Amino acid sequence: MKYRVRARPKEVEAIAAALALEQSVEVPLAAVREPFVRENIVGRVESIETAGEGRFEVAVRLAAVTFGGDVAQSVNMLFGNSSLHDHVELADVEPPEGWAARFGGPRFGIEGLRRLVGAPERPLTSAAIKPQGLPVEKLAAICHAFALGGIDVVKDDHGLADQPYSPFAERVRACQRAVERARRETGRRTLYAPSLVGSPKALATQARILRDEGVGMALVAPALVGMPAFHELVADGIGVPVLAHPAYSGAARVAPPFLLGKLFRMLGADAVIFPHHGGRFAWPKALCGEVARASRADWQGLRPVMPVPAGGMSVERVPEMVRFYGPDVMLLIGGSLLVAGDALVARTREFVAAVEAAGAPERQRELA
Amino acid sequence: MKYRVRARPKEVEAIAAALALEQSVEVPLAAVREPFVRENIVGRVESIETAGEGRFEVAVRLAAVTFGGDVAQSVNMLFGNSSLHDHVELADVEPPEGWAARFGGPRFGIEGLRRLVGAPERPLTSAAIKPQGLPVEKLAAICHAFALGGIDVVKDDHGLADQPYSPFAERVRACQRAVERARRETGRRTLYAPSLVGSPKALATQARILRDEGVGMALVAPALVGMPAFHELVADGIGVPVLAHPAYSGAARVAPPFLLGKLFRMLGADAVIFPHHGGRFAWPKALCGEVARASRADWQGLRPVMPVPAGGMSVERVPEMVRFYGPDVMLLIGGSLLVAGDALVARTREFVAAVEAAGAPERQRELA
Repeated sequence: MKYRVRARPKEVEAIAAALALEQSVEVPLAAVREPFVRENIVGRVESIETAGEGRFEVAVRLAAVTFGGDVAQSVNMLFGNSSLHDHVELADVEPPEGWAARFGGPRFGIEGLRRLVGAPERPLTSAAIKPQGLPVEKLAAICHAFALGGIDVVKDDHGLADQPYSPFAERVRACQRAVERARRETGRRTLYAPSLVGSPKALATQARILRDEGVGMALVAPALVGMPAFHELVADGIGVPVLAHPAYSGAARVAPPFLLGKLFRMLGADAVIFPHHGGRFAWPKALCGEVARASRADWQGLRPVMPVPAGGMSVERVPEMVRFYGPDVMLLIGGSLLVAGDALVARTREFVAAVEAAGAPERQRELA
Repeated sequence: MKYRVRARPKEVEAIAAALALEQSVEVPLAAVREPFVRENIVGRVESIETAGEGRFEVAVRLAAVTFGGDVAQSVNMLFGNSSLHDHVELADVEPPEGWAARFGGPRFGIEGLRRLVGAPERPLTSAAIKPQGLPVEKLAAICHAFALGGIDVVKDDHGLADQPYSPFAERVRACQRAVERARRETGRRTLYAPSLVGSPKALATQARILRDEGVGMALVAPALVGMPAFHELVADGIGVPVLAHPAYSGAARVAPPFLLGKLFRMLGADAVIFPHHGGRFAWPKALCGEVARASRADWQGLRPVMPVPAGGMSVERVPEMVRFYGPDVMLLIGGSLLVAGDALVARTREFVAAVEAAGAPERQRELA
């Protein structure tokens, strides 16, 4: 496990040793009297490297046996108590081979998504139905406009839940019918991804509604519903790709490339939303690039997860984003399309055309 | 809702306005064309107050109807996307009357815990069974020693899960029998609180084992298992008091008095563990005091939740801690008791005696 630690140089060794104890036995070493525990369970500091003024990268070895095969317990051992330390960030995990694969990872991933929407090479497009507060028929009309405009994945705003102004079951049915109608009109397939949010029982009910309505994808925020419940939802056989939303992910304390690009992927996300720089969220460009790299890198034999940069993007930024991320990306534009009002279909077509132009393989080769 | 925001003075109004949009409609105001949504759903900035150099407290009014009665959706609306902003912290929530009570809150709380352990006035005591890696019989022996020493609540280390060296079902049975044996020996009741951790299905299985074994309490980390799953576990009728552990809760930037003292309480915690200053966690003393105050304050008609300061405490600090927190507190000492080795029962008795001496009502009156 790698942690980033803020410390004075003369204190860093003691802080690293305390971190290794905190994330394993959680007692002073003097209280560990069993040789088995000392040798096999106590965490060990493997290395301490400087990472700038007053910053260090500390590698700690934790015993895999303390994790079990459980999501909650794994997060507990990785960052349970140390999350309470302001000076510690969980930077990365290099688990033993096969550890992540036990959780399954993406069942569709980049390739599966491309197959479902019939787009083998170009960047994919996504748009969001909002604002919440609209009645079902208006949300469905927006969904239809996006699908007519040629969007690959139309997702609910993650704020849409089961509110009285647009109840979940009604909304899902109406929006799914809207994308099916558009498909008959255009011959092009749009996946509709409703937002699943709630307690474990509510999630199971919502997943059943998705199946009954023939919905093609699901949006879930693992940090909101809880990572163990997220994983159970996926592992219990939700039959469609899952788009992970970063809400409440507290990404300031767990390094986003690990949390979004590896952990959410390990738990079964097929695509993962994160803020692109220069929008509503002040993430540095390099960090956005690292999230995308982590999400597509070879890791533990899992399928790659589709990176979905978002957060205040606009059609004008498409060429720059495709240049930055390459073709294995899904661009998500939300509010800025909706500003078009009655010209929504036309504006959506501009978005889709911009992605197709920027992402055509020949254009990609030119840029390379 | 109150947020703490870092901003330059000339930017704070724009940041506050963006925050109100982000936590409600999540589109530019220009994309909100429906009068109903503009008037009833869009978040509103109610006030901006300076809170030190470059720091502001921003009050935002969000529509309760967007929350529904759901835990995940409530957290989503409170801090979903804004958790991705480094400059924003969720400081507090002043919900409409009755909102929190819908979730139920503590079923035992301070008074119920006192009744169960037969201690109507003095501070309560707690100790932790660790380190993980020990076999079941050694953990049960430690549990027995703590109970013989007179501890009110003996909890599993939160690192104990269902590992092969101390499987959950075996451990719970052995430790519960250990506290029952001690009760026959001393006539004094100790509650054993095993650590429940895992996916929603695993939690349900573990809760069933607790019932079958007649266990008196449960330890659960809401941020690890997921707050919705935590609430479902409590609401589904786990019949014993729940001690909330703060593991992984630091991963989101939510002010501890709200997260631990109000939100965990709203979800049904009867006691809540948090770091006391001057131990292994560098929380300021004032923050610890605020958590305790929030946990016991009148709020939404819920029972108070027992504050449990911990994190590297020792017997020597008992008088100071009781002075600081008063009698409505449960003191939790973990590793520092275990350092006593073979003298564990004697050292535990010192802890219990120190709490009884410091917390006797006459002593409290003297100090007041």
